[in-house]
Amino acid sequence: MQQPIAILDSGVGGLTVAKEVMRQLPREKIIYFGDTARTPYGPRPADEITRFTREIVDYLIQYRPKMIVIACNTATAVALEDIRSRVAVPVVGVIHPGARAANSSTQTGVVGVIGTEGTISSGAYENALKQLSPTIEVVSLACPRFVTLVEQGNFRSEETFNTVKTSLGSLQAGNLDTLILGCTHYPFLAETIGEVMGKDVRLISSDGETAREISTILHDRNRLERAEDMPVHQFFCSGDPVMFKRIAQQWLGEQIELTPIVWQVPQIANRTVG
Amino acid sequence: MQQPIAILDSGVGGLTVAKEVMRQLPREKIIYFGDTARTPYGPRPADEITRFTREIVDYLIQYRPKMIVIACNTATAVALEDIRSRVAVPVVGVIHPGARAANSSTQTGVVGVIGTEGTISSGAYENALKQLSPTIEVVSLACPRFVTLVEQGNFRSEETFNTVKTSLGSLQAGNLDTLILGCTHYPFLAETIGEVMGKDVRLISSDGETAREISTILHDRNRLERAEDMPVHQFFCSGDPVMFKRIAQQWLGEQIELTPIVWQVPQIANRTVG
Repeated sequence: MQQPIAILDSGVGGLTVAKEVMRQLPREKIIYFGDTARTPYGPRPADEITRFTREIVDYLIQYRPKMIVIACNTATAVALEDIRSRVAVPVVGVIHPGARAANSSTQTGVVGVIGTEGTISSGAYENALKQLSPTIEVVSLACPRFVTLVEQGNFRSEETFNTVKTSLGSLQAGNLDTLILGCTHYPFLAETIGEVMGKDVRLISSDGETAREISTILHDRNRLERAEDMPVHQFFCSGDPVMFKRIAQQWLGEQIELTPIVWQVPQIANRTVG
Repeated sequence: MQQPIAILDSGVGGLTVAKEVMRQLPREKIIYFGDTARTPYGPRPADEITRFTREIVDYLIQYRPKMIVIACNTATAVALEDIRSRVAVPVVGVIHPGARAANSSTQTGVVGVIGTEGTISSGAYENALKQLSPTIEVVSLACPRFVTLVEQGNFRSEETFNTVKTSLGSLQAGNLDTLILGCTHYPFLAETIGEVMGKDVRLISSDGETAREISTILHDRNRLERAEDMPVHQFFCSGDPVMFKRIAQQWLGEQIELTPIVWQVPQIANRTVG
């Protein structure tokens, strides 16, 4: 039987990672869990985020995943090591792939990181970068207004340009040549962020980088899927399935031909909402 | 005791991989073996290449490496799976990292590969790409004259430009948006190849991509080095150590401050040269 890759997120943001896994590894079956009933995780205390993440992993483990992907910056920052110590399969977060890509890309040794306040204050990107290269210089900046712009679908307006330009002003000095978009929502603003930062700054999105590390690790462990049949993905959410399905189809459906989706709302929602 | 990463190559080409490991993972200790007495591997039969690679691995294993890197396209194409089946530590080649980076990068789904005749005729890049994405289109081309240009130090002359332009002519049609430099010598010609292919074609060098996958796999296996001390690397070659040392210092010495190098010529050279 084909063992899936389990991808979990606090809501819909992790669908960008799922989309990249579908693009880069079209043979792999995905099971996705969006904890839409309890999103966002950002403002929650660390022990609560760890508990939520454990609950979702406990739920997904019944599907015998060959790998668990924490496709949420906040949950990765707080709970990655906890989950790694609890399960036998490899666990991948979104922070180390982004940090590794930036470390590989930078020539000046100066890397910027933008993210939510929770992710930035955790210092997780800085720790991951310094673990690789002790002398790397990291400039971190919380951009709390960006998520709202994305959730409004406001990717390319003048208001968006002005907000991005004002927010990123402090990053434009110095030798910074690489900028990590440390939030799954930010890739939707990549064009605007690119215009503001200029063409000499390379933008790193965790979605594509995480999909690539999933591929590397499955190959190293000799667990890449060999079956020729196209996989049937499964999506779960803890909140309103109608809204989740609409967003997922909008994000995934246009460029990727989806095999039939089994929509299920697990019991976890009833236990934990509110 | 710090366990090293063992990097082996048919000669000096794999030093580009070693240099990238030093840049991306400055805490990691490297032991490098260049089989300069028996280079090049390209024209040799497969069973001989496998035997040579096994001999070098058997020699290096006494240093208790935590990983083995086959930094030679020909040896990777022929002997990677054999070595993976023989040792308990992870074994990384240069072909899958390049293929994975190209698969991740391409938007059109059309990827070019250039390499030596041996590498191209093995079909190893095409196999690696199709294993990831069955529908990807791969255009392969042997460029035997490029290695000579590099070994002459002839990176940027008019002759080089004309040779590259003539050789790559057949790649410039179609939707190709990503080109894998499938030979450790080719990155020295990257500027010229980039001029010929145009700015819309992304060039993939295996050196940086391989270093990044080494980082990913060591992180997944919880084997990244944590020591603060800078490592002392060791270099071995089976041929003339004076010439090897001169090239290694020229390639590694300018941008990277090397800790003292222990130069050793193992017995393998005496057994097998000639």
